[in-house]
Amino acid sequence: MTESLPVTPADIDAAAHVLAPFAVRTPLVSSPALDELTGGKILLKAEVLQRTGSFKFRGAFNKLSSIPVASRGAGVVAFSSGNHAQGVAAAAQLLKMRATIVMPSDAPVSKRERTKGYGADVVLYDRLREDREAIARELAARQGATIVPPYDDPKVIAGQGTTAREFCEDLAARGSTPDIVVAPASGGGLIAGIAVATKARFPDATIITAEPQGFDDHARSFASGERELHRAEGSTICDALMATIPGEITFAINQRLVTRGVTASDAEVGMAVAFVFRELKLVVEPGGAVALAALLAGRIDARGKTVVIVLSGGNVDADMFSRLIG
Amino acid sequence: MTESLPVTPADIDAAAHVLAPFAVRTPLVSSPALDELTGGKILLKAEVLQRTGSFKFRGAFNKLSSIPVASRGAGVVAFSSGNHAQGVAAAAQLLKMRATIVMPSDAPVSKRERTKGYGADVVLYDRLREDREAIARELAARQGATIVPPYDDPKVIAGQGTTAREFCEDLAARGSTPDIVVAPASGGGLIAGIAVATKARFPDATIITAEPQGFDDHARSFASGERELHRAEGSTICDALMATIPGEITFAINQRLVTRGVTASDAEVGMAVAFVFRELKLVVEPGGAVALAALLAGRIDARGKTVVIVLSGGNVDADMFSRLIG
Repeated sequence: MTESLPVTPADIDAAAHVLAPFAVRTPLVSSPALDELTGGKILLKAEVLQRTGSFKFRGAFNKLSSIPVASRGAGVVAFSSGNHAQGVAAAAQLLKMRATIVMPSDAPVSKRERTKGYGADVVLYDRLREDREAIARELAARQGATIVPPYDDPKVIAGQGTTAREFCEDLAARGSTPDIVVAPASGGGLIAGIAVATKARFPDATIITAEPQGFDDHARSFASGERELHRAEGSTICDALMATIPGEITFAINQRLVTRGVTASDAEVGMAVAFVFRELKLVVEPGGAVALAALLAGRIDARGKTVVIVLSGGNVDADMFSRLIG
Repeated sequence: MTESLPVTPADIDAAAHVLAPFAVRTPLVSSPALDELTGGKILLKAEVLQRTGSFKFRGAFNKLSSIPVASRGAGVVAFSSGNHAQGVAAAAQLLKMRATIVMPSDAPVSKRERTKGYGADVVLYDRLREDREAIARELAARQGATIVPPYDDPKVIAGQGTTAREFCEDLAARGSTPDIVVAPASGGGLIAGIAVATKARFPDATIITAEPQGFDDHARSFASGERELHRAEGSTICDALMATIPGEITFAINQRLVTRGVTASDAEVGMAVAFVFRELKLVVEPGGAVALAALLAGRIDARGKTVVIVLSGGNVDADMFSRLIG
């Protein structure tokens, strides 16, 4: 099932080896409160506890590690609303490379500050009027730097896949089998890596994407069989999940391995963030909570099932968090 | 070293067996940010992820499980500012026993509501004017119920000790040895259980209590060699850590196994709560953060050492939490 894909289970094994000394092996958290509420056995992969506060460090570090030593001097360039920015900046700092990050001017302040905190140069752009990829290409050409794509890259996808490699190992160690795995999708890199790693070990698991309402390009693409743009105008509180269309490489994987997509509204996401604060004692950002939000909103039937939900990131400003839990 | 104590490693093994199907085996969380800041290898035992949001469930469930079946019908009575209340209420619910909890009228609203949510009857008292133990004794006598002490009880201490039994197992599995273990102390039940379990496996580990400034009855008692009252008047944001004097049984253990006590001010505790929100993506209540606060304030030298810090609880009201992270 995972043969002849652009990313293989062996690529993910190799990424796990590269990441082992640097990434946090994040826990799979169980919650009696959540089990009682849903009637299932819910296991939360707490990527909020990952280095830089999101899974993005995995793909970024795996990609940067693959750059030949001779090319490292010119540094890397990336475009990102914030979590990939921090992942690339932290990976570059560990590998002693220069990083320039193109970020939207409306990205959460904490994400900007933290990216600078890892020693990266931050270049701001207007999300609605400017083309971040063009800006990044021009910067990279000028510096001779390597572009680190946020999702549509086999090394990035393989890095993100280590998330599932870990939870599959943990489940196997408990003698448990996942019936359903749900993770947030923006460009689809996380879910693509997760799908490859999960299906390699548990071929019968159902893989589901979760997206903010209106930003459901994956759900629509799975339905039509082609890469569809999302329909949203304006914004969502899920700042991490605003890619307009599935990636080419990621969709080639996800179309074969992912069963369907579900969505959650901003209000449902806000309630999920508050639930996680109150009942699970974790800090999750809106985009990182969308899979749990869809579960809590009843869009995934967990009764009698073992369900892995990925909490993909926790980089949320204090004022937004206070508003959501208040 | 742990022979002839009121609680033995074997008691903690037995408690672990009783708790296994019900308690969460909480993760030991690492944080590159914290390691870089302190120069040590810091491991956080995330008891905020425990059932009911604090370690207190462990001791409560172990105690309630030890009540003979013939006595269970009359139920249990406990007095607590909130976390023990929830632990006893949740344990009673699981064991289908009636629970009455005597709580101070100024306990956080969330702790009161959550205690009721586990099906317990809550009786409020005035913390400054009334004697909670007398109220509990009268209630218990009237109902024929069993009193569940918050800390000064071998079954309770053994239950809390399972916290350390887990992290010692996890450390041993990684081939790692703890140099220092720091946990919050109020009546001293958690630290007593932790000290017994840790010293049984790692006799050279240094065990340290952490208390709010002014509420440092353990630190003062270790210094004088006798059970001392704390000197504080008024209050602290660490609502969970306001016991006035170490317990008799707990101090018999702690006096032999604990090296010293450190403190942190309310301001330092608030900064630790904000640090954990921002960098670790966990929700910790003020009392649960006091050990980390003492570390961050420089009162424990972690350079080159492996240090286990217990984050003991996460039951904090949204408005208090928003204030501390803002």
